[in-house]
Amino acid sequence: MLESLKKEVYEANLQLPALGLVTFTWGNVSGIDRETGLVVIKPSGVAYEELSPEQMVVVNLAGEVVEGTLRPSSDTKTHVRLYQAFPEIRGIVHTHSLHAVAFAQAMRPIACLGTTHCDTFAGTVPCIRELTAEEIEEDYEGNTGHVIVEEFQKAGIDPMAIPGCVCAHHGPFTWGTSPMEAVVHAKVLEEVAHMNALTVALNPDVSDIPAAYLNKHFSRKHGKEAYYGQN
Amino acid sequence: MLESLKKEVYEANLQLPALGLVTFTWGNVSGIDRETGLVVIKPSGVAYEELSPEQMVVVNLAGEVVEGTLRPSSDTKTHVRLYQAFPEIRGIVHTHSLHAVAFAQAMRPIACLGTTHCDTFAGTVPCIRELTAEEIEEDYEGNTGHVIVEEFQKAGIDPMAIPGCVCAHHGPFTWGTSPMEAVVHAKVLEEVAHMNALTVALNPDVSDIPAAYLNKHFSRKHGKEAYYGQN
Amino acid sequence: MLESLKKEVYEANLQLPALGLVTFTWGNVSGIDRETGLVVIKPSGVAYEELSPEQMVVVNLAGEVVEGTLRPSSDTKTHVRLYQAFPEIRGIVHTHSLHAVAFAQAMRPIACLGTTHCDTFAGTVPCIRELTAEEIEEDYEGNTGHVIVEEFQKAGIDPMAIPGCVCAHHGPFTWGTSPMEAVVHAKVLEEVAHMNALTVALNPDVSDIPAAYLNKHFSRKHGKEAYYGQN
Amino acid sequence: MLESLKKEVYEANLQLPALGLVTFTWGNVSGIDRETGLVVIKPSGVAYEELSPEQMVVVNLAGEVVEGTLRPSSDTKTHVRLYQAFPEIRGIVHTHSLHAVAFAQAMRPIACLGTTHCDTFAGTVPCIRELTAEEIEEDYEGNTGHVIVEEFQKAGIDPMAIPGCVCAHHGPFTWGTSPMEAVVHAKVLEEVAHMNALTVALNPDVSDIPAAYLNKHFSRKHGKEAYYGQN
Repeated sequence: MLESLKKEVYEANLQLPALGLVTFTWGNVSGIDRETGLVVIKPSGVAYEELSPEQMVVVNLAGEVVEGTLRPSSDTKTHVRLYQAFPEIRGIVHTHSLHAVAFAQAMRPIACLGTTHCDTFAGTVPCIRELTAEEIEEDYEGNTGHVIVEEFQKAGIDPMAIPGCVCAHHGPFTWGTSPMEAVVHAKVLEEVAHMNALTVALNPDVSDIPAAYLNKHFSRKHGKEAYYGQN
Repeated sequence: MLESLKKEVYEANLQLPALGLVTFTWGNVSGIDRETGLVVIKPSGVAYEELSPEQMVVVNLAGEVVEGTLRPSSDTKTHVRLYQAFPEIRGIVHTHSLHAVAFAQAMRPIACLGTTHCDTFAGTVPCIRELTAEEIEEDYEGNTGHVIVEEFQKAGIDPMAIPGCVCAHHGPFTWGTSPMEAVVHAKVLEEVAHMNALTVALNPDVSDIPAAYLNKHFSRKHGKEAYYGQN
Repeated sequence: MLESLKKEVYEANLQLPALGLVTFTWGNVSGIDRETGLVVIKPSGVAYEELSPEQMVVVNLAGEVVEGTLRPSSDTKTHVRLYQAFPEIRGIVHTHSLHAVAFAQAMRPIACLGTTHCDTFAGTVPCIRELTAEEIEEDYEGNTGHVIVEEFQKAGIDPMAIPGCVCAHHGPFTWGTSPMEAVVHAKVLEEVAHMNALTVALNPDVSDIPAAYLNKHFSRKHGKEAYYGQN
Repeated sequence: MLESLKKEVYEANLQLPALGLVTFTWGNVSGIDRETGLVVIKPSGVAYEELSPEQMVVVNLAGEVVEGTLRPSSDTKTHVRLYQAFPEIRGIVHTHSLHAVAFAQAMRPIACLGTTHCDTFAGTVPCIRELTAEEIEEDYEGNTGHVIVEEFQKAGIDPMAIPGCVCAHHGPFTWGTSPMEAVVHAKVLEEVAHMNALTVALNPDVSDIPAAYLNKHFSRKHGKEAYYGQN
């Protein structure tokens, strides 16, 4: 079932250690088949060097296992909540990468300070509010997804223009039109978080990049006027 | 004697350079056989790339060499003191890893700021008080272990819930139910120390993670309600 | 056409990931043949591990493609503007390297604090002013080059003595008498930016290196009195 | 001539990139044969990957080339000045390693904050005063060595107990009883500089390690009471 997607998700998972985004098993990638509404996700707590495509777990949008002998990632319900709310995404990544976690723990959004940031994220990457004790008790992982969706909708943020966030006290989630694109966004987020922290140390009063830069750089890479890269 | 434990301790020692936790010979791992009360520990000052399982030194709980031609780690008396006081542990690690040492030198406990921390350490990792000149003169390494035990007991900290500490002016000690688990805890401690320092730089007024998060994340991974990983 | 220069530019591009200066495709190197006035440059958005010398694109000094089936780097017009204005340079590099970007985002010039800096850059590396919204709209990449040239000329800076700059909100450009020398300058700039940031954190009131040091170190390596290296 | 020492110096030089202490050719190691008073040193500006033992240059204590077809390191006169003044040393290293340079540029001594430091350096590592314009003009490299010696003598510092320093605006010099020991000291200095900077960021009011720790740790490793390592 979904062998091709399993391979895609497997290979995207292997990119997490290759790109320096994870220690031990602190991260996971999933992908969705929009026709069947089935999600393929990394099994929980399995070391990347021991993974195989066949171990990938298939779950439905209720988070129930449809195929696979291993338990899915403990963050599965966060993933499915995001797939339900953001119909254009086909891949999701969660990591505990160092600098993105620092912003999550500091409960500080990642302001857009330069062109590296706005080549991928068309503005500030939000820091999602902490869950209440009740939300944690009731359904921790589901509600983690729920508040991400809630804050994007409340603030009117297009999840395709800002394909990621950091969750207070926790860490980053990113997404994209494929599992591998979501991984690329996870790496970019880590890099721009690092650049942002270094910038603020050099100039605590730095202001956001002017809108003209943001629009120019984002549209160089996205939309019909894009001229970065090859066709 | 204890060939299997020697191999286990040898392999755990090799993980210290592999995980980026040591420069030169600045670290050591031991393991204990609880039936005989004998401890297997790295020989002092031997480079990791030259180690072999047979070189591991066997000492008793008084710290006396029972088998082996090499001198045991100079920190041996700290290890045996911890094995005496914490009956559930079977492995101990000491390193001079960069960020854990920074907290030790700053004499600052490592506050629990996020889920990465509380997946492994159920609260603040304490910074153990400095030794007096008398304690250093009398029995430096033994007293290093002694004050760790004293502070855990005084503060009522469960060493299985907070499996490590940093010692003032010195560096981290971690432990676990096996030598390899103690190494994993040494790596997690270094990572969360790094994340903590980055977080405080971004937000000097950051507060500890709420208790509901701490309880949720620690119990996702530990105890009978755990659902992280495979059975 | 220009096969030897294509190989030179290709090899210089491969040094960007080898020296840790780029993530993904965030950088490019070009070289110029001064006899024909033709510039060889990396194709846009192609991964370094998939590059070949034949893929290099040839453009004229108006930035128009003369040979090649791929689109040239989106920064091509910045490169040609610099070649037009600085007649002694034969290679240009643009990256988003971490610490140089931090200075660009902080809009802070890189002051000359030590001999590592003045071995290569004979004084402060300027931070070029931000573009106006009009300049961005009209010709973003061309004007990026234009303001670099303008500021070097206004301030009377010799581009051969200070072979690089950081552009506000964006990142570094460096140049040299060959593509490979421009890459070396990109690496030196990243290192001295890193050293500068660490120095300022240790001593916020640090002052620039005295002129006698600057003159001595720069002239040890450059000009007819140089005695560093072999003949 | 001195083939065995050439090999020793060659291998010690190769450890500089292996230990992450140099970028490009920013470092050099020398060794002395005390019987003949001849010094073997790296040739200037030659890449480490292209070095061979035969390329090592032999100079006398006046800094004049006695054997070799290549120019010796431009820092040769600093090395010979130190060999003249410190009769027990047999190896010297100079690098531009990142964190040691930051202290040199900040003109800040490296205070002894922990046991990692005092295992090797029995107290504060001094920052040597800047040279005057006259001293630079007259004999830059010779006077760099001269002021190191002057400050150690004035302050009554034993160069065997504190085997290194940082020179204002420039970077670290370390030494030892062999070229390889000098390299080990260069690596330790870089690590303790890094730890020191991280510590000060966490606790700006940190004070030096108490004398009882310093004495204990230094004497565990040095002198006739040493019990670290094997005999």
